Amino acid sequence: MNFHGGNIYDYDNEIIDFSSNINPLGVSEKLKYEISKRIDEVSKYPDIKYSKLKSNISKYLNVDKSNITVGNGAVDIIYRAVICLPQKKAFIMAPAFSEYRKACEISNKEYFEIPSFDFDKNYFDIDFFKSKIEDNSIIIICNPNNPTGVGIKNTDIESIVEISEKKGNFIIIDEAFMEFTCDEAKFSFISNIKKYNNVLIIRAVTKFFGLPGIRLGYGISSNYKLNEKMEYFSKPWDINTFAVIASDVIFNDIDYIEKSKKWIIDEREFIYNSLSNENNIHIYKSDSNFFLIKTNKNSKYIRDELLKHNILIRIPEGFTGLFDNFIRIAVKDRESNIKIINALRSESLWIEKEEL
Amino acid sequence: MNFHGGNIYDYDNEIIDFSSNINPLGVSEKLKYEISKRIDEVSKYPDIKYSKLKSNISKYLNVDKSNITVGNGAVDIIYRAVICLPQKKAFIMAPAFSEYRKACEISNKEYFEIPSFDFDKNYFDIDFFKSKIEDNSIIIICNPNNPTGVGIKNTDIESIVEISEKKGNFIIIDEAFMEFTCDEAKFSFISNIKKYNNVLIIRAVTKFFGLPGIRLGYGISSNYKLNEKMEYFSKPWDINTFAVIASDVIFNDIDYIEKSKKWIIDEREFIYNSLSNENNIHIYKSDSNFFLIKTNKNSKYIRDELLKHNILIRIPEGFTGLFDNFIRIAVKDRESNIKIINALRSESLWIEKEEL
Repeated sequence: MNFHGGNIYDYDNEIIDFSSNINPLGVSEKLKYEISKRIDEVSKYPDIKYSKLKSNISKYLNVDKSNITVGNGAVDIIYRAVICLPQKKAFIMAPAFSEYRKACEISNKEYFEIPSFDFDKNYFDIDFFKSKIEDNSIIIICNPNNPTGVGIKNTDIESIVEISEKKGNFIIIDEAFMEFTCDEAKFSFISNIKKYNNVLIIRAVTKFFGLPGIRLGYGISSNYKLNEKMEYFSKPWDINTFAVIASDVIFNDIDYIEKSKKWIIDEREFIYNSLSNENNIHIYKSDSNFFLIKTNKNSKYIRDELLKHNILIRIPEGFTGLFDNFIRIAVKDRESNIKIINALRSESLWIEKEEL
Repeated sequence: MNFHGGNIYDYDNEIIDFSSNINPLGVSEKLKYEISKRIDEVSKYPDIKYSKLKSNISKYLNVDKSNITVGNGAVDIIYRAVICLPQKKAFIMAPAFSEYRKACEISNKEYFEIPSFDFDKNYFDIDFFKSKIEDNSIIIICNPNNPTGVGIKNTDIESIVEISEKKGNFIIIDEAFMEFTCDEAKFSFISNIKKYNNVLIIRAVTKFFGLPGIRLGYGISSNYKLNEKMEYFSKPWDINTFAVIASDVIFNDIDYIEKSKKWIIDEREFIYNSLSNENNIHIYKSDSNFFLIKTNKNSKYIRDELLKHNILIRIPEGFTGLFDNFIRIAVKDRESNIKIINALRSESLWIEKEEL
């Protein structure tokens, strides 16, 4: 079963896609130029060692090249990490992305999703989560979290990592949305990576660089045994030429990065302020580029009503620990944001029609 | 250990790459135009069901859409097929591509490479191969074979498939180089696919369409249980947007297809005729776009000598059943072909220098 955002290919009309939480600035002009200039490179195999690609990531994150594993999207790194780690069970901080469960299923590992989000206080209850973790386990945390949008401070993450060292636990931190926090010093664990050898951080160009179609994810870890094993479980030339070309451009595209960060800060505030005093919904504060919203109607009803306005939202299928009155919306451009704000504010949305 | 063609990224000089057996016509102009026109699509996730991509392949091969599984290169299909099949051991017709072994290794399956090539008669001894196959096994055949270049008639393949039905065997036929035979009616098993549910055929756009960097492979099988299981073991959005765009163009690019076939027939004959009467080498007749050559020197010595001419060849590392005096060269454009022919004919190559 596919538990991902609405597949736009299922719809005939031109729709505004609030279900997929991608940077709406689109593909950077510099990348378009570079691809059109270097398109002939697709007739050669990519470097099987991905040496330049790893160098580019290494410079961007300021970590050593030997810490980096590259993959065909973040999911490739998640699957391979869970397969390669020796621990037999996993504890997932929930609500969480459905692919963590699937990674455990195909690796025949037992998994437990620990609902740790305090819906009243809008934060993850780290002490509660810690109290539920068993020894010799994989721990999976998405930071900032999808679907709540909430960031977890790296000092809180460190408190989990530290108790884990003695317990034989290994921590996977999915930072796929990290750049959107616009405050990596507070949230990202990357600057700590050298201190611990029981941590893997996952990133991708999918969300912040607006490139879901290019398929490039990467892992950062000081556990060389894991890095080597993940390399062994990779397929040769798993990453395509366009992803390699992208890495030569996007990480240095300061204009795109700064414009994206300014945009996310402005639009995130605009949406939150516009919807925080509504009667029929409760919007949770977000550190990412999407919002979780609690409503007083069934999410499928809201999805279907909004589709009449050509607006597609994400309903909480596949996310453990969310009731079916939750929806998730992405932060998009101002014009689109106004459309969804108006739709969500309109009285007619909340008056359920009787079935004929 | 990487047992693939020479990685051109390891060399500083501009070299002519005879190690990688790719269509040297390069990227079709139609595809370049299509990618530059549709580059913005990379900011959307590909269709998670890859419905249009499967339709395109279905039309190209004249098989039903339900028979098709798509993957991130042919290797992705090979790995997933071997993981998903219930049989516990595999028999590989050798010499063969090293990834078949690796697929067995990561799936914890026992494997046996059966050296079946008759070097005197330049054909695969099908009866010998059949006599070695045990019941309840996976059988892997590369047709036309890499590294010998020799095609196996589909009537011979059918004789293996037929005895296999009663024995619980499943046959994987890797047809990655099939279009280069220019005689699919004689060699390809695809038109038989509906008759058997113990066969998977693998193809890719890598070799014939000159697109190793785009990463698109696909499987064709009437075993719906296997197709479903392989789908379950896939990762979401495993294939990138550019591969999907390519599928809209290349299979209908009659100019490119016809030009490639005419070229391969001409250049294959040119190289064979030019080298078939040499003293120091024996060139095997090929149905593909590369030649296996037996020499009277160690292949590493020949590789190093040819590198001085900026020519890179494939030495037989990773191919079981080849001695270390074999080399493999790709068929390239006339100008490059003349260069390697002259280099291989030159007296100086065969007079080994004494070490200082």
